[in-house]
Amino acid sequence: MVSKPRGTRDFDVYEMEKRRLVQAKMEDTFKRYGYKEIATPTIEHLELFELKSGDVIIDELYSFKDKGDRDLALRPELTAPVMRFYTEKLQMETKPLKFYYFGSCFRYDRPQEGRYREFWQMGCELIGPSNPEAIAELIALAYFSIKNTGLQDIRLCIGNLNLLKKSYLINDLPPASQAAIFRLLDKNDIDGMEQLLEQNHIESDNIIFFKEFLTSRSIDDIRSHFKRSTVAQDDIDHFDKILEFLDLFGVPTKDVIKMNIARGLDYYTGVVFEIEAPILGAEKQLCGGGSYTLVPLLGGREIPTAGFAIGFDRVMMALEKENYEFPFTSELIYVTSLDQDLDREVIKLVSQLRHVGFMVDFDLMNRTISKSLKYADKIGAQKAIILGRNEWDQGNVVVKDMQSGEQQEVKKEALESFLA
Amino acid sequence: MVSKPRGTRDFDVYEMEKRRLVQAKMEDTFKRYGYKEIATPTIEHLELFELKSGDVIIDELYSFKDKGDRDLALRPELTAPVMRFYTEKLQMETKPLKFYYFGSCFRYDRPQEGRYREFWQMGCELIGPSNPEAIAELIALAYFSIKNTGLQDIRLCIGNLNLLKKSYLINDLPPASQAAIFRLLDKNDIDGMEQLLEQNHIESDNIIFFKEFLTSRSIDDIRSHFKRSTVAQDDIDHFDKILEFLDLFGVPTKDVIKMNIARGLDYYTGVVFEIEAPILGAEKQLCGGGSYTLVPLLGGREIPTAGFAIGFDRVMMALEKENYEFPFTSELIYVTSLDQDLDREVIKLVSQLRHVGFMVDFDLMNRTISKSLKYADKIGAQKAIILGRNEWDQGNVVVKDMQSGEQQEVKKEALESFLA
Repeated sequence: MVSKPRGTRDFDVYEMEKRRLVQAKMEDTFKRYGYKEIATPTIEHLELFELKSGDVIIDELYSFKDKGDRDLALRPELTAPVMRFYTEKLQMETKPLKFYYFGSCFRYDRPQEGRYREFWQMGCELIGPSNPEAIAELIALAYFSIKNTGLQDIRLCIGNLNLLKKSYLINDLPPASQAAIFRLLDKNDIDGMEQLLEQNHIESDNIIFFKEFLTSRSIDDIRSHFKRSTVAQDDIDHFDKILEFLDLFGVPTKDVIKMNIARGLDYYTGVVFEIEAPILGAEKQLCGGGSYTLVPLLGGREIPTAGFAIGFDRVMMALEKENYEFPFTSELIYVTSLDQDLDREVIKLVSQLRHVGFMVDFDLMNRTISKSLKYADKIGAQKAIILGRNEWDQGNVVVKDMQSGEQQEVKKEALESFLA
Repeated sequence: MVSKPRGTRDFDVYEMEKRRLVQAKMEDTFKRYGYKEIATPTIEHLELFELKSGDVIIDELYSFKDKGDRDLALRPELTAPVMRFYTEKLQMETKPLKFYYFGSCFRYDRPQEGRYREFWQMGCELIGPSNPEAIAELIALAYFSIKNTGLQDIRLCIGNLNLLKKSYLINDLPPASQAAIFRLLDKNDIDGMEQLLEQNHIESDNIIFFKEFLTSRSIDDIRSHFKRSTVAQDDIDHFDKILEFLDLFGVPTKDVIKMNIARGLDYYTGVVFEIEAPILGAEKQLCGGGSYTLVPLLGGREIPTAGFAIGFDRVMMALEKENYEFPFTSELIYVTSLDQDLDREVIKLVSQLRHVGFMVDFDLMNRTISKSLKYADKIGAQKAIILGRNEWDQGNVVVKDMQSGEQQEVKKEALESFLA
């Protein structure tokens, strides 16, 4: 028996219905914020992801040579492809450009709960503005696109790579050590960071001072870290305004500052943020984003860019764990007959009702009427239309409400409006 | 500059809006017929497609080894994956199973108009019944799912591999020659077929008789080919009933019979059908389908299966060639202010309106009011809400209709209902 590849999934009709419901809610939020969908290929040239994606991603790429000996890769994320598209084709478009995407991504990772080799990713990219309103709107969109799915308990955290880099201690380290520190911060490995700083002969007082900075909870805490230095003045003011605008956008900003967010992708700059669902434990991260620089690396003109990606599978897992009740609505109608010589009339009626937009099904398995009605119930039909010779000859059909069991004779001509 | 891989495409917001409109119409038709969505991985084990997919497809597979040295392939089509899913997981489900799918498929083909290396495919699979009503319903669904997109000129053709195999002349050939004939028929290479038959020492009278069979236009023509032989009696009756039911389903059946449809995929049996858009010339085929046998090959229990696949890109091309007017509807609202000190009020109003479901945008590029309104027009805003100090202090905003240019003062409290 041929099986599906390890770490991939099949989705049955129930799972797909849930997924499409949640997807539609997210897309609805994106659209309310003026974001529009674009799409890029599933396969890209390998070099696109080697430019600046971080070591982990490169190690986990599904890459292969095509028959023309070109190095291709299944996309591991969609920010680099969207920026590639922008650089190739869209640089002349009026700004801002507000794009959203939805698609499969691939990572050759050890399969485990909440981590799949093919996973669904949604996200948004904002090209053009970098002012605090714009960044705040983007973060608000990330927050509400998840919140509006019905998920109850989510946590937004916002950091700032500019402030991290300019902070006392990091600012004085050589770039290679900075990068090493960021990788440890990204893994939340504070002990490892401390060891590394000690190896760099940093005095313990200074390490303590830096660790205090990492636990900043407010703009005031951040300002006090930089004391009288003006090196980070503009970044602090920008960050302050983002928080103020976030508040105007209706996002709860209490305790959102988290200075040790470093992000796994090497192309981030400035503000970075994450949204978590604590209910998921170790795999709690639903969304990551921030300001980044990729376009010049791809050969395009310098332009501010920011965005976020949402792990759609994680959102689904979190909703399931919160026992979210998916609002299924079925308007399926089932048509059946008591007399075999009415079978052709069943098909004509089915056709007529489908033609004007109803969802209609009928028996394809030569079932008896009682088995037919059981099947109708099983597939979630709301109403059954039963054709019987006597009623039919009088111009009527019987409509049965599948939930209450109530039956009612309805004139054929009045059937469509009765069902609507 | 990194470019997209050869034969793949990026879709901008205008193209995606069109594609999603057409996709939604097709999915709506599928649902009206009781079909529900399922999904399978983009990657599969290579062997799945080697089982019985036809030589052409195997040659054009994107296949590669993963890091565990397993042979994988990007799916070239979705019928084999859906049957793999059914065989692995769904054999015990109540029949009929009516599935639809929508996804990217891949073929390493020479890129040309209407042929891409990554293309979008939709389709339906019916598992369980094989009676004429069921097959007729499936063909009707294929027909109407394309017709309901708004495409005007489409042509349905229906053939029958059982009748072709049992026809006088083919029935007497060894299997290898049968397969060779079918491949030539599939390419519509009648001269090549004639040559092959001559090489097989078939008398020219018999070849003429067979060629006449290929041009059968009615069930009567087919019956007359088989004369008094009863070898194909059941198949002819079944085929006859399918055409009769198709008529009940509202599908025009005049001239639909086309006996030389052989289909490129080796797993078809019995009834086969195609839908074409003549406006597309050489690339006119939009849809292909029929009854097939795959489940036993995958290790599952014998069960009737039938389905069809629609080349979504071709449908889009045909709509474009017919100059179809896509029914775009934008309900975008743009909010701007005459006074900079109202900027925070703009954001609050934008947030409030988005929160209750409106699509709303505002300036992120520090534009002047006149440039802002030009931009609003460009992105298709239907209405602009303009905040001015005087009106604001009196509890009003100005709402401008972007098409007519008409302006109207509206009370803040009445704004939501005014816009709805």
